[in-house]
Amino acid sequence: MLSFENDYSRAAHPAVLEAVAEANNHLYSGYGSDELTEQAKAKIREACGQPDADVWFLVGGTQTNQVVIDTITPAYAGMITVASGHPNVHEAGAIEFSGHKVLTIPHHNGKMDPAELDEFCKTFYADGNYEHMVFPGSVYVSQSTEYGTIYSKAELQAIADVAHTYDMPLFVDGARLGYALTVTGSDMTLEDMANIADVFYIGGTKVGALFGEAIVFTKHNTPKHFLTRIKQHGALLAKGFVLGAQFDALFTDDLYFKIARNANEAADRIREALHAKGYTLTFEAPTNQIFVTMDQPTIDRLERDVKLGFTEKADDTHTVMRICTSWATTPEEVDQLIELL
Amino acid sequence: MLSFENDYSRAAHPAVLEAVAEANNHLYSGYGSDELTEQAKAKIREACGQPDADVWFLVGGTQTNQVVIDTITPAYAGMITVASGHPNVHEAGAIEFSGHKVLTIPHHNGKMDPAELDEFCKTFYADGNYEHMVFPGSVYVSQSTEYGTIYSKAELQAIADVAHTYDMPLFVDGARLGYALTVTGSDMTLEDMANIADVFYIGGTKVGALFGEAIVFTKHNTPKHFLTRIKQHGALLAKGFVLGAQFDALFTDDLYFKIARNANEAADRIREALHAKGYTLTFEAPTNQIFVTMDQPTIDRLERDVKLGFTEKADDTHTVMRICTSWATTPEEVDQLIELL
Amino acid sequence: MLSFENDYSRAAHPAVLEAVAEANNHLYSGYGSDELTEQAKAKIREACGQPDADVWFLVGGTQTNQVVIDTITPAYAGMITVASGHPNVHEAGAIEFSGHKVLTIPHHNGKMDPAELDEFCKTFYADGNYEHMVFPGSVYVSQSTEYGTIYSKAELQAIADVAHTYDMPLFVDGARLGYALTVTGSDMTLEDMANIADVFYIGGTKVGALFGEAIVFTKHNTPKHFLTRIKQHGALLAKGFVLGAQFDALFTDDLYFKIARNANEAADRIREALHAKGYTLTFEAPTNQIFVTMDQPTIDRLERDVKLGFTEKADDTHTVMRICTSWATTPEEVDQLIELL
Amino acid sequence: MLSFENDYSRAAHPAVLEAVAEANNHLYSGYGSDELTEQAKAKIREACGQPDADVWFLVGGTQTNQVVIDTITPAYAGMITVASGHPNVHEAGAIEFSGHKVLTIPHHNGKMDPAELDEFCKTFYADGNYEHMVFPGSVYVSQSTEYGTIYSKAELQAIADVAHTYDMPLFVDGARLGYALTVTGSDMTLEDMANIADVFYIGGTKVGALFGEAIVFTKHNTPKHFLTRIKQHGALLAKGFVLGAQFDALFTDDLYFKIARNANEAADRIREALHAKGYTLTFEAPTNQIFVTMDQPTIDRLERDVKLGFTEKADDTHTVMRICTSWATTPEEVDQLIELL
Repeated sequence: MLSFENDYSRAAHPAVLEAVAEANNHLYSGYGSDELTEQAKAKIREACGQPDADVWFLVGGTQTNQVVIDTITPAYAGMITVASGHPNVHEAGAIEFSGHKVLTIPHHNGKMDPAELDEFCKTFYADGNYEHMVFPGSVYVSQSTEYGTIYSKAELQAIADVAHTYDMPLFVDGARLGYALTVTGSDMTLEDMANIADVFYIGGTKVGALFGEAIVFTKHNTPKHFLTRIKQHGALLAKGFVLGAQFDALFTDDLYFKIARNANEAADRIREALHAKGYTLTFEAPTNQIFVTMDQPTIDRLERDVKLGFTEKADDTHTVMRICTSWATTPEEVDQLIELL
Repeated sequence: MLSFENDYSRAAHPAVLEAVAEANNHLYSGYGSDELTEQAKAKIREACGQPDADVWFLVGGTQTNQVVIDTITPAYAGMITVASGHPNVHEAGAIEFSGHKVLTIPHHNGKMDPAELDEFCKTFYADGNYEHMVFPGSVYVSQSTEYGTIYSKAELQAIADVAHTYDMPLFVDGARLGYALTVTGSDMTLEDMANIADVFYIGGTKVGALFGEAIVFTKHNTPKHFLTRIKQHGALLAKGFVLGAQFDALFTDDLYFKIARNANEAADRIREALHAKGYTLTFEAPTNQIFVTMDQPTIDRLERDVKLGFTEKADDTHTVMRICTSWATTPEEVDQLIELL
Repeated sequence: MLSFENDYSRAAHPAVLEAVAEANNHLYSGYGSDELTEQAKAKIREACGQPDADVWFLVGGTQTNQVVIDTITPAYAGMITVASGHPNVHEAGAIEFSGHKVLTIPHHNGKMDPAELDEFCKTFYADGNYEHMVFPGSVYVSQSTEYGTIYSKAELQAIADVAHTYDMPLFVDGARLGYALTVTGSDMTLEDMANIADVFYIGGTKVGALFGEAIVFTKHNTPKHFLTRIKQHGALLAKGFVLGAQFDALFTDDLYFKIARNANEAADRIREALHAKGYTLTFEAPTNQIFVTMDQPTIDRLERDVKLGFTEKADDTHTVMRICTSWATTPEEVDQLIELL
Repeated sequence: MLSFENDYSRAAHPAVLEAVAEANNHLYSGYGSDELTEQAKAKIREACGQPDADVWFLVGGTQTNQVVIDTITPAYAGMITVASGHPNVHEAGAIEFSGHKVLTIPHHNGKMDPAELDEFCKTFYADGNYEHMVFPGSVYVSQSTEYGTIYSKAELQAIADVAHTYDMPLFVDGARLGYALTVTGSDMTLEDMANIADVFYIGGTKVGALFGEAIVFTKHNTPKHFLTRIKQHGALLAKGFVLGAQFDALFTDDLYFKIARNANEAADRIREALHAKGYTLTFEAPTNQIFVTMDQPTIDRLERDVKLGFTEKADDTHTVMRICTSWATTPEEVDQLIELL
């Protein structure tokens, strides 16, 4: 059965699997202290244009959000996100589990408005009782967002500027960073991201890896004893070299971005077909997630042949469904889907 | 200078102070294991009409909210409140500090709508991804609310009914319970509260005590080893008998409600004067907190002679101010305030 | 019935109660922002000989330990105490509840050996795997200890020196500080304590107050946004002025130390009688806690007339019992006890 | 260079890698809801002889310990381990991070004595102040232990019996379970383990997997909403099927135990050679970890050609070193090591 359900249904890009298999021919020391990991970090630093960046590999996205947010947010403070942000909705309270409140402002097709961020902080500090409240301590956005939308360089810089005004680091969740940066007409590069964000992660799980996310601290701002904090969160992989091997492969010959681009091209073709066939896109978004508002008969018909993702009920008779492409989507799969539409 | 700033500016009712002084003539065992505490608990059980209720005394409101919510909410779950609820806004993240997300629904002049509570839970369980989300685990309301409004018996019962449908206990924060239950025309008694809520507290700090809140578990539902949980939260008072002495005094000869009524009567007189003088009440509320939308010249004039509470900016030229009476407000103070208005 | 069970069985010294009653004649703003609290802080700063010290009032001992330790100990670190330390044994896991491991070294009649502290830290940093372990982050001792013993000035300084070598603050729990500093032959003053410790607290609960502990940060080292951290722990008293009133009284005319001395004098008399009558003191300790190893018939005989504290079984036929005097112990009570012995 | 440093230096058994590569030919749904995971669980249930056991796959050992211990231990309680237990020493405070105290009793070459466990609990409940203390809430042991020793069936049953007497579940950390169960002369099978323990895990990371641990709840005792708790801990792997594929391979044709046996056989040969050559084994232990007390010249000589693991300083001139074999150790590597000894 055809599936456009999500972007983590296939194990890994063949080059990644080969890198892991090749690693099997050697013995490595544990916990990421090996040379393969070092090599992967060096390649990422180079790709970021930041020879001094500090790179760490973790296993998964929620884990990465929890570890980063807990360690960059002061104990008296919370993390600000738009209400639709992944840590606010789909991480089972992982942030609160580590003791921090998630502070929310409205989203606009998944995006944060820097003016609203500023307003939120201004209101906080203007409140005579602010010492009885949770301080704004860090800012979280994702690139791309939960809605598949992306920030332009100027937009992200504006958010960073506001964050810094209130002495907060900006953390960018890049679970789908590859897809965000390879959109047709994107004005942002990995170097831009590294310049703007205080810390971000390059998602591997959804872009070709078996698993793995690469955290990049770009401003000599790694939390003290970060390895111990990772361990404390139960997030330190014994065979760190398995992460190193994967990211080494992904950052060799630009593989990460090449395969990411594939997802966007597939999505572009599907979007075109949807428009041509009169479907209602819930909103415009340029990356690998397409949200379509469909009536039930259409859904029933499609789901006989293709797995789609449920997002939410739009009204009594319509539902927002997600069509998600990935690095692994083939032209044939796109052809088949378009035919079915 | 006259003050209507809040309801915790004066130490304690004279009878409470006398009870503490009288306790000084005896030696008591520690941590609430004394006979004075037992006597106070018995009086509260009787006032609640629940011979089996389990009563505990803590020191303050945020502490009580933290201990109760943490212990009645499952580890995989959050606590639902209206967005204006005290634990969501003015407790510095005490709930999240103990690991639980605060889940919010809109408020209506501070009150929760049972239909919206139901909708929230229904939507949660209808979401295919709900296992990745924070479960609704308990419901928090306050009586009276942050806006001085109150729930009728039927309204509170409706909330309890929804909560129980989803297997959640209803916790009622009664920091100002005395004021809520003695409003002219209130249809709810302490017995009603004890029948409806699964756990609630009777606020002493704002109603005549030096400090102290009496938690009442009404359904044989005290969390296991609750004393240990209190201690773990750093909330167990060594000289528990000082709490016992105070609540014993407050629940002797109906003192608690008599002095609470005084605050409402004072507030009624002030509300009448405000209406007569053409002030704009921000909204109608019957208890000891009066919210008035004032322009800056009025505020400046009043604040020369009387301390009021700042609530929030209403617009560029108006501010919502709070006039707060208490058990200690004298008719003379009310007279003076009315003259100033 | 006579009681030497503990030092928190009587409400408060009359002067403290009067101060609270007097406070009742005024209106104060909340949360310790009042002038009475400010005045009490000034008196404590003066008594400490530290005009710049930062003073805070909390309600109880476990609460104070939890708030201070959580806020001075880095997130990747634990707090070091001797195994018999109160937070390790009798605080229901309050430190771990706030996320920190309690690291233990042996005690010697309740006291920490600076050489063993040094050895613990040296061993930690010598371990190749130390990044996988809990860092030593702060040092906790109490003065007097759980065993009623005290540190000399040189001993405490030696512990502070080791702590500082490893970049750890020294926190001194002074629940019984009054008793420790007024021992006959004590070589330490409150000024010495303020010079040596990075943060300590002056216990009120056990030395004349209804409740209350005064935290003193002596090195411009108050944790950032400490008020918010207190609130987050549920530990901020609404009527902070009730704490202010009490400590203002205790630090007027040296009352705190005068009444503390009474406990030691009473204990000295009892110790003398115990020696004279051939009792076996479990070990020598100069403060208000006397530990005596008794056989069961003796215990049975004494407990007909006087409440003592159980400490632990010494062997199959002997038990360690505690005789505890306090600021409130009268010469008559001591006479009666001696007669019974 | 030869390495006997640890048992997680090589990526994975070829059959495991093949299984992952084969998984790459299919699309799977996320978070362990796929058929491959289901198949692996079925094989483990069968190997355990428990058709009703509940099996879950996590990524790493500390993570598994944190998630299991946090979810099986009541909030008012701690987890009991011997002092040398991994969560007490080498998990960076992961248990305390989730709010629980680690309660310790002495170890005997890494093992727990059931009589001492009983004594600990008896003493706890006999203490008049036990409600102010951390309750014993769960028991943790590992099979094999940190010292490479193992429990016999009777010994483990005795610990389980004591645990159950005090209403505590017994959790067995099986990071090296394969090695423990395949020791020459072992009297325990996986079925025995499943019968005795309330919950245990089958370690994959150290026995042939890239990563992964299989938790088995054997008594219909899975914590409520366990998937949500896993997610909350940041421990839910998006591509759960990668875990499923590995354990499916490991539990096909008894692979897990076959490759585990290899490590023990290699260790047996090394032990024999050590004895023959007059080395001092620190203590006797039958599994894949050999602890040898060596003088510095010997260590210096060996480390020119082979990586060993440092354990601890024995005295000023001797050090305890660890020689660790694994599923991947070849006869040639053993030959080379023996020659060097």
